[in-house]
Amino acid sequence: MDLASQLASQTHSLPFEFRALEAILQHTVNTLQARLNDVEPVILDTLESLVDPKILSADRSKLHILLQNSKSLSELETDIQVFKDSLLKILDEDEIIEELCLTKWTDPRVFEESSLGIDHAEEMELLLENYYMQAADLGNKARELKGLIDDSESVIFINLDSHRNVMMRLNLQLTMGSFSLTLFGLIGVAFGMNLTSNFEEDPRVFWLVTGFMFLGSGLIWRRLLSFLGRHLDPSVPTLIPPVWKRNLKTSDIKAGVR
Amino acid sequence: MDLASQLASQTHSLPFEFRALEAILQHTVNTLQARLNDVEPVILDTLESLVDPKILSADRSKLHILLQNSKSLSELETDIQVFKDSLLKILDEDEIIEELCLTKWTDPRVFEESSLGIDHAEEMELLLENYYMQAADLGNKARELKGLIDDSESVIFINLDSHRNVMMRLNLQLTMGSFSLTLFGLIGVAFGMNLTSNFEEDPRVFWLVTGFMFLGSGLIWRRLLSFLGRHLDPSVPTLIPPVWKRNLKTSDIKAGVR
Amino acid sequence: MDLASQLASQTHSLPFEFRALEAILQHTVNTLQARLNDVEPVILDTLESLVDPKILSADRSKLHILLQNSKSLSELETDIQVFKDSLLKILDEDEIIEELCLTKWTDPRVFEESSLGIDHAEEMELLLENYYMQAADLGNKARELKGLIDDSESVIFINLDSHRNVMMRLNLQLTMGSFSLTLFGLIGVAFGMNLTSNFEEDPRVFWLVTGFMFLGSGLIWRRLLSFLGRHLDPSVPTLIPPVWKRNLKTSDIKAGVR
Amino acid sequence: MDLASQLASQTHSLPFEFRALEAILQHTVNTLQARLNDVEPVILDTLESLVDPKILSADRSKLHILLQNSKSLSELETDIQVFKDSLLKILDEDEIIEELCLTKWTDPRVFEESSLGIDHAEEMELLLENYYMQAADLGNKARELKGLIDDSESVIFINLDSHRNVMMRLNLQLTMGSFSLTLFGLIGVAFGMNLTSNFEEDPRVFWLVTGFMFLGSGLIWRRLLSFLGRHLDPSVPTLIPPVWKRNLKTSDIKAGVR
Amino acid sequence: MDLASQLASQTHSLPFEFRALEAILQHTVNTLQARLNDVEPVILDTLESLVDPKILSADRSKLHILLQNSKSLSELETDIQVFKDSLLKILDEDEIIEELCLTKWTDPRVFEESSLGIDHAEEMELLLENYYMQAADLGNKARELKGLIDDSESVIFINLDSHRNVMMRLNLQLTMGSFSLTLFGLIGVAFGMNLTSNFEEDPRVFWLVTGFMFLGSGLIWRRLLSFLGRHLDPSVPTLIPPVWKRNLKTSDIKAGVR
Repeated sequence: MDLASQLASQTHSLPFEFRALEAILQHTVNTLQARLNDVEPVILDTLESLVDPKILSADRSKLHILLQNSKSLSELETDIQVFKDSLLKILDEDEIIEELCLTKWTDPRVFEESSLGIDHAEEMELLLENYYMQAADLGNKARELKGLIDDSESVIFINLDSHRNVMMRLNLQLTMGSFSLTLFGLIGVAFGMNLTSNFEEDPRVFWLVTGFMFLGSGLIWRRLLSFLGRHLDPSVPTLIPPVWKRNLKTSDIKAGVR
Repeated sequence: MDLASQLASQTHSLPFEFRALEAILQHTVNTLQARLNDVEPVILDTLESLVDPKILSADRSKLHILLQNSKSLSELETDIQVFKDSLLKILDEDEIIEELCLTKWTDPRVFEESSLGIDHAEEMELLLENYYMQAADLGNKARELKGLIDDSESVIFINLDSHRNVMMRLNLQLTMGSFSLTLFGLIGVAFGMNLTSNFEEDPRVFWLVTGFMFLGSGLIWRRLLSFLGRHLDPSVPTLIPPVWKRNLKTSDIKAGVR
Repeated sequence: MDLASQLASQTHSLPFEFRALEAILQHTVNTLQARLNDVEPVILDTLESLVDPKILSADRSKLHILLQNSKSLSELETDIQVFKDSLLKILDEDEIIEELCLTKWTDPRVFEESSLGIDHAEEMELLLENYYMQAADLGNKARELKGLIDDSESVIFINLDSHRNVMMRLNLQLTMGSFSLTLFGLIGVAFGMNLTSNFEEDPRVFWLVTGFMFLGSGLIWRRLLSFLGRHLDPSVPTLIPPVWKRNLKTSDIKAGVR
Repeated sequence: MDLASQLASQTHSLPFEFRALEAILQHTVNTLQARLNDVEPVILDTLESLVDPKILSADRSKLHILLQNSKSLSELETDIQVFKDSLLKILDEDEIIEELCLTKWTDPRVFEESSLGIDHAEEMELLLENYYMQAADLGNKARELKGLIDDSESVIFINLDSHRNVMMRLNLQLTMGSFSLTLFGLIGVAFGMNLTSNFEEDPRVFWLVTGFMFLGSGLIWRRLLSFLGRHLDPSVPTLIPPVWKRNLKTSDIKAGVR
Repeated sequence: MDLASQLASQTHSLPFEFRALEAILQHTVNTLQARLNDVEPVILDTLESLVDPKILSADRSKLHILLQNSKSLSELETDIQVFKDSLLKILDEDEIIEELCLTKWTDPRVFEESSLGIDHAEEMELLLENYYMQAADLGNKARELKGLIDDSESVIFINLDSHRNVMMRLNLQLTMGSFSLTLFGLIGVAFGMNLTSNFEEDPRVFWLVTGFMFLGSGLIWRRLLSFLGRHLDPSVPTLIPPVWKRNLKTSDIKAGVR
């Protein structure tokens, strides 16, 4: 920015077409920058609240906002690319730059006047390159933002999946408990039948069977839980080496060719 | 568009081959535009209804329509690319442009006649470039539409996953309730057994046990629910700094090199 | 194809090396086309049956076939790319084309004989370009097929997820019913205990309690279902504007630069 | 390979720098090939066992191996790319090739000696191009392998999702059965209450109520199952046309421009 | 690195502008390298703990760290790319390199002095190329790291999905058990009704019905489990050939063209 303003103050001594072109380019870059400034904070805020590990389900209105701004970002990226391509095309063809320097064509004195050692065409090129750099910076920022949305979406998915797994384990543990209770409750149901079991009169049997029902279901539940624990954490592979420490020394190959 | 019609009125004074080529190019661009206009609203409408956060499951016929139009869009993108490549190839080789200017070759007078300062070859180049720009615009729109489909699919997945998590939490809460009821129902089943518990005659025990069953299961349920709440919202990390606020000042590095 | 056969009939009057080269190129393109024709219908059929919205789970043998043909398609794409690169390299270097025109070098008469206004080198270039175009068409078709596989996989995932959500909602609704029945069944269990409730002799109490159990669980179930309905369809955001209708007029910016 | 050895035997008559350079290039290509040969069978075997449709959950140690080898493959791809870029850079600058032909500079006789019609610089170029082709082949194979990993991961996900859907449907069907049994079991619980229903003495009522409980729950289950069947297979859209048969004739457009 | 220090010692005899430029380039490369060294171990450690197959749900704070560093990596990649582009632009335009060699312009003696056979411009080019190579290496490492994050995310998803499938199968097996127990428990509930079944006095019936309940539910459970086993492992297709062994000999086609 400061470079641009500094350049702007310099070019006051420059011919009209420079100042006109610079005004146009500056306005375009400012518009693009303003659009990025509009979109960036909204996307960052929305992502910030969406990747929040505490949330169980993504807020749908936030997703809507993200989708809208993601679309605006795509359009902005396209416009920056078109702007960059236009500048690049002018920069690639020297004739067009020469033609842009109108003053040189109309006013022959200008040709000798350039005391700085660089003629107008080169100055024009520097001007265009400066705005190309600014546009490229905007384009890079837009691309990074796009990548951030993708990365965040992966994190949102992992978050949602993790929540689901945690809930499913809790559910499974409760299902195990319910199963144990149903299994041993069947004993109670059996003794509740209007059939003679010949234990009817023994007062100890009530407490014995009741205790067996509760203790039994508790024990079975504990065994199921520990089975689940072993099943999910297969106390595995301290043998498996970590993935990333193996730094293949491949630099020899590269060095051999250059 | 208006630029094209304006250009068309200008070129009436131009030689025959210009008008012929322009008619062909205009027709091709119109066809491509018409195909994009066919596909775009259908895709936008379908996506609009698919990303609707209220829906629990994606409408399958909508998915079918989306897939069909996504395929058409791919084919359109290919055709636009082929059209652009063809134009670019002609633009890259000056000889071909010269050869396209048939009039110059047959009618020697034309060579001097061009009063505008640009000869026919340059005019031909401008004509081709104009249509190249139009095709590039169409290509950009098609690419943005493609990106929108991808973004929307991510949002659809997050929506479906969120719904599932919400339902799973409700399911888990009910499973917790059922577990509590089963656990304390076992007491009732125990007292329902045809065994002597020596409480049979005490009228207060009925109300005591019944109250214990209902209150106990209610209490256990509440504890399980609060445990779930703590388990899923780990009141964590106000320590964790937000991701995006850290704006690394990397501009120094860039500035150092240029 | 017809262009090729037409060209083939023309070239009978052409020197030997043209006919030889054309035979080789034609054979290569035919082989590539045949491989694409092998792979394309299998992939389309497999995708057609996999994206079928009626299926609950993907047919695994179909997935196997898809994976195999997807691999063949990748290899085909590579081969087409290699073929295109080879042709492009020859087309880029004029000397190689000149060298390919053997007749010109051995038979000096041929040099003047070309009455069509284009010499052999240009004809050779046209020949190579023709086959380059055919290869590019094949490459585009392979790329579109690849994109179709990707799009279809997304649709398959959305289909599977949708099915799962529908099943999960049904499951949740049944869990709600079971919960209500268990809750009110506890009353029955309480009255089934061998304890004195002092209602034993009243004949109306049986019907009252039984009716309360069934009606109560029915009512609670209905309330839970309507709660689920409200929870999942949050009658939300008619306020949220549709995403796609906002057509930012960004054409001004583009127009300003060109 | 055979081409290389054949070339090697030819070049024995060639100057020293050719044989030296060839030895270096051959060694580099061999090293890259060896690394690809290391990684490829492991990845193929691992993927083969991971995409196995019979497995319910992915083997984690296999995933670990896949991740390790996928990393090695990425590094290999980078090294191949660096090698290719180096060769390409030399091939692009004719001066460097000239400089590599040391013999020409020191031994003036060599200049005329080349009887084959191609001088040393061209021979050097052919040598470099040959190894560039070999490296490009390796690069293509690595890229195909990378694509195969991606495709296989999609298939693994579809497999896991399919398994989950199948299990969820079984679970839902059992939940339906449990719901029916609980619903009609409530009748039994009602009659099990210590309350007077005035049916106590009628011996037919026992069989009537028992039969009603079992038949009723069976019937309700059957209705729920058929409801599920209808809900998931919505006997839909024979109206919906297949996606892929619609072959848009877009060739006219392409033909019109070329 | 050693190459750089070696080059540094050489250039002490070189003019001032070389040493200045080298200091700037070295500082930039060092800064980029330091940023990569900051980010790389954190990402590797985080991924290492996230792809751990034993974990059921991803650690959210780890995901947060990954997301932050992934963002830093993106910014680093952009900066490396900008640095590379700047160097490449200078390398592509010989005039700029000439202009950078200030000494040549001011001190005419230098022109003849270069005894090594390479003039200052070439030496400048070598210097720039050396740093370009270093930046390219950094860029490749950043890209590989990025790819590793993507691959790891896939593995995390497969891990989470696998865990879920394992838990769902356990859940399904327990639901089957609960269903069997509920089904046969209904018999007990039926006999628990206060209705006359005429079996009340027979002492064998109690044991018969109780045994039938437990054995029956056990048998039904076993059948359901074996049904599940058959349903999920469809003893399939030893007929299906492995995907990867089919090595299409496509080399003929490639060989035919070159």
